[in-house]
Amino acid sequence: MTNASPSTIKGTGVVSGVAYAEAVWVRPRPDLPTAGEPIEESRRDSEYDRFLEAVDIVASRLEQRAAGADGQAAEVLGATAGMVKDRGWHKAVRKGIRAGKSAEYATVCATDKFVTMFEAAGGVMAERTTDLKDVRDRVIAELRGEQEPGLPLVEGEAVLFAADLAPADTATLDTAHIKALVTELGGPTSHTAIIARQLNIPCIVAVGARLREIESGELVFVDGAVGTVRLGVDPAESRKAVEEYREKAARVAQWRGPAETKDGYRVQLLANVADGNAARIASDSQAEGIGLYRTELSFLSASEEPTVDEQARIYAKVFNAYPHSKVVVRTLDAGSDKPISYATLTSEENPALGVRGLRVARDNEALLTRQLDAIAQAAAERGEDAPTWVMAPMVATSTEAKWFSGLCRERGLTPGAMIEVPAAALMADTIMPHLDFVSIGTNDLTQYTMAADRLSPQLAYLTDPWQPAVLRLIRHTCVVGRDNNVPVGVCGEAAADPVLACVLTGLGVNSLSAASTAVAGVGAQLAEVTLEECQKMAEAAIDAEGPTEARASVFKVMEQFKN
Amino acid sequence: MTNASPSTIKGTGVVSGVAYAEAVWVRPRPDLPTAGEPIEESRRDSEYDRFLEAVDIVASRLEQRAAGADGQAAEVLGATAGMVKDRGWHKAVRKGIRAGKSAEYATVCATDKFVTMFEAAGGVMAERTTDLKDVRDRVIAELRGEQEPGLPLVEGEAVLFAADLAPADTATLDTAHIKALVTELGGPTSHTAIIARQLNIPCIVAVGARLREIESGELVFVDGAVGTVRLGVDPAESRKAVEEYREKAARVAQWRGPAETKDGYRVQLLANVADGNAARIASDSQAEGIGLYRTELSFLSASEEPTVDEQARIYAKVFNAYPHSKVVVRTLDAGSDKPISYATLTSEENPALGVRGLRVARDNEALLTRQLDAIAQAAAERGEDAPTWVMAPMVATSTEAKWFSGLCRERGLTPGAMIEVPAAALMADTIMPHLDFVSIGTNDLTQYTMAADRLSPQLAYLTDPWQPAVLRLIRHTCVVGRDNNVPVGVCGEAAADPVLACVLTGLGVNSLSAASTAVAGVGAQLAEVTLEECQKMAEAAIDAEGPTEARASVFKVMEQFKN
Repeated sequence: MTNASPSTIKGTGVVSGVAYAEAVWVRPRPDLPTAGEPIEESRRDSEYDRFLEAVDIVASRLEQRAAGADGQAAEVLGATAGMVKDRGWHKAVRKGIRAGKSAEYATVCATDKFVTMFEAAGGVMAERTTDLKDVRDRVIAELRGEQEPGLPLVEGEAVLFAADLAPADTATLDTAHIKALVTELGGPTSHTAIIARQLNIPCIVAVGARLREIESGELVFVDGAVGTVRLGVDPAESRKAVEEYREKAARVAQWRGPAETKDGYRVQLLANVADGNAARIASDSQAEGIGLYRTELSFLSASEEPTVDEQARIYAKVFNAYPHSKVVVRTLDAGSDKPISYATLTSEENPALGVRGLRVARDNEALLTRQLDAIAQAAAERGEDAPTWVMAPMVATSTEAKWFSGLCRERGLTPGAMIEVPAAALMADTIMPHLDFVSIGTNDLTQYTMAADRLSPQLAYLTDPWQPAVLRLIRHTCVVGRDNNVPVGVCGEAAADPVLACVLTGLGVNSLSAASTAVAGVGAQLAEVTLEECQKMAEAAIDAEGPTEARASVFKVMEQFKN
Repeated sequence: MTNASPSTIKGTGVVSGVAYAEAVWVRPRPDLPTAGEPIEESRRDSEYDRFLEAVDIVASRLEQRAAGADGQAAEVLGATAGMVKDRGWHKAVRKGIRAGKSAEYATVCATDKFVTMFEAAGGVMAERTTDLKDVRDRVIAELRGEQEPGLPLVEGEAVLFAADLAPADTATLDTAHIKALVTELGGPTSHTAIIARQLNIPCIVAVGARLREIESGELVFVDGAVGTVRLGVDPAESRKAVEEYREKAARVAQWRGPAETKDGYRVQLLANVADGNAARIASDSQAEGIGLYRTELSFLSASEEPTVDEQARIYAKVFNAYPHSKVVVRTLDAGSDKPISYATLTSEENPALGVRGLRVARDNEALLTRQLDAIAQAAAERGEDAPTWVMAPMVATSTEAKWFSGLCRERGLTPGAMIEVPAAALMADTIMPHLDFVSIGTNDLTQYTMAADRLSPQLAYLTDPWQPAVLRLIRHTCVVGRDNNVPVGVCGEAAADPVLACVLTGLGVNSLSAASTAVAGVGAQLAEVTLEECQKMAEAAIDAEGPTEARASVFKVMEQFKN
């Protein structure tokens, strides 16, 4: 099922898995009405009746869906229906209509008023504004006689199709019905991809305009690993593939670490976290430790730099989640899309190519040494079985590696570096002698190697972690790591893809760090292949012309192992 | 003289050559005054007298300098003095002072008025606004009793020191007096570097704050090739080095192409141009042909896309300058720092990592095919001895190379690609089978490989064409080029540096394209070394830890050849 046929449409697969179900398009949000001509006084009462009728229809439709759903989805739908029937909101709409506004426009104005109030109230109230706007859109569509926008009511199973998914569209996604997500736009880091990863359902993004060739109701076979949407596939064959995948998912759920290949080759599986809470969640997963602790959060959420003691307390929360395992701390990666008022430049033409990561510390070494002091202070509590490793982001030269390493060693910390600038991979032989470990950041490494912004939806076809160019840099880094006896990890989206994780292992990567939800899938996949098979998969990927070809030939190699 | 000593300060050498003379600091421009308190009516006449006095002093100082200068410099200084004495400008200042403005503030306002008028007039008038602002600054400094800003009057020989040089500072630079330029800021593509290259005087940029340790009047030895400024050097030794360099410069002036190494290995030397005028100037130099014709100018200067016939006429002007030689045309490289309203996106977070170069044509193929039609139309007139090669900017994958190549071959054009995205170098084995040639764009390749904006003054230490990481990508491209029988050229700043040109030749580069003024220097240097020596220089550069070390060890290798 890996050969392209005329009925196959390709996109970027961002969550593995297969599904076979009817396509269902998410209907677009309506354009919001503007003021327009005032309604004549004589017609205002009937205008308000029109509004109330629309409200009744929308509310009962939501209640019907709530009755058919269960758990959190039922709650969310019930609450949304309640919001449609809110008397205060009706009153605000009525006031607008009495002043001459159309029902549609009065709905917009009343909603804006409530949104402002909710936002001022903050907290849980502020979180409801998305639902409020969803209610507004549903009522406006009903008033216009248009189809209800957003997520359609799905009775059986469906593959959700959309231009792109907004948070409002995904809030009530129920995996009992929705078996996969496919979008025209987006990239591996878009909202759709993040949600799909959380829900662990197959997801393909950046399919392009060709997706519109498929209409709601058509049966599609979706393969999130290779990024294909296929029409006209044999139903029996499709159901068999889905069944096989289900069995595999069950194996994943039962998988227990530590990870090793079928022939017993150990690969360390770690979690990426941003705070103590995420670290505690990770410690309940099969992740052996923390492979990437992003420390930005404690800096981004404060208006001024936290003191050394404050920082130490924040870091200790993450350390405490893994009192007997390795934690890898990345020093502040400010700049680019994470500007910090007291530390970074604000007016760069190309922030991603600017003064970011370790470069910020070049003119502000004390910012870095205070952080290292805080890490050392928090790490002092940890035992021999709980190593604390520290790595710098955006290292490009051996001079930078040497400088950072010196600052770490002065404080008894174990120094390392992110390999995310192409030069760092190319010059690994000069950088590694200064360090005790490296970790490849595939997201940024891909961005720079392809010269394509990782957040650009137009360039998602380039910023694919399967790009052979990036895999070649990873291979080179692993070869140099072995020569220098420096362990090489990977953190980034690439490490969350089970099949790509096998490729990375075959290239010589020693540890993989990803969202903790992805760890079991990676571990279960590794358990099914030998190291030699991983190496063959790696060769196939490296020799491919592009990411699509790399995926296809790696899956072909895997098929051969099964036979 | 390559060993660093305590009296050596290092920067980024951007134009080779040595100089030994007194340091002279360019004085900074004054802060412009704001409105302030109004002048009392009784004091306004004497305020205007104060202005006239300052004008007299500034004018006579400029006239004195004009008398001591000759040629264009005398003309420029004379014209500037004339501008100081302009009655219309005086009248505008007087009007301001009579309305209560201070002499300083009235000078600013009157100048602004004239600048606006000059800019509205356009053409030659608009070009004078820089001089007008220079006059304003001189008068304001005189009114305040501050030292005259900008270029000081140099009697003998001097090395000019500055934070950075503005166009106004460099307009009257006279190489009879100014023997080298050294700046705290800037990078290899800053205004200072461009001017130094035009004047062909040694230049070092990005020295940093340590430059301020040297005061005007101190004797300094400057080596633009290695980027060092040295104090306390033996005068006899210094003069000998300068004399040797002068002899070398004379050899450069006498050098005639075509270029080859001492042992007869041919290297094609070509010129970078942007229009027919530059092509005609190049044809008077020793450049054998055009290695990079940047076609953006004809698109940037128009509000809408030129027609195919218009384009063909513009391209023919460049072709006609070399009726019997190769011309390499690069298709439109719009986007990034060259936005074109009708073709490119305007709101990208990181334009240099955005939809630029060939990527623009992905959603607008007709823009590219119209340009290829125009190139084919203009090239149809050319004979067998005048090949027309066409290359695409920002190629990252074999899919893009194949697509572009197909469009070219349909039109009988010879297809190639810029190698400026790291992925294109890493994947050269998959890209080259589709192409007849490649040309490495070292400026962008360096920017992406180092993940550092080439225009960022803070990151000039990273965006250095001597970065071994970049040289390694070039080596890899050359190896693959040889295997595929695809010639590899280099266009970009790297090809303009005579010593780096030897390194590139040693790496296997077949042709070098640079500003036509740089060609003879490169040719003369190549004539002094054998291919094997170039290969040894290349090895030394590739094995170095960073650009500074690369320069130092290549110069050490060259010293060994002499002995």
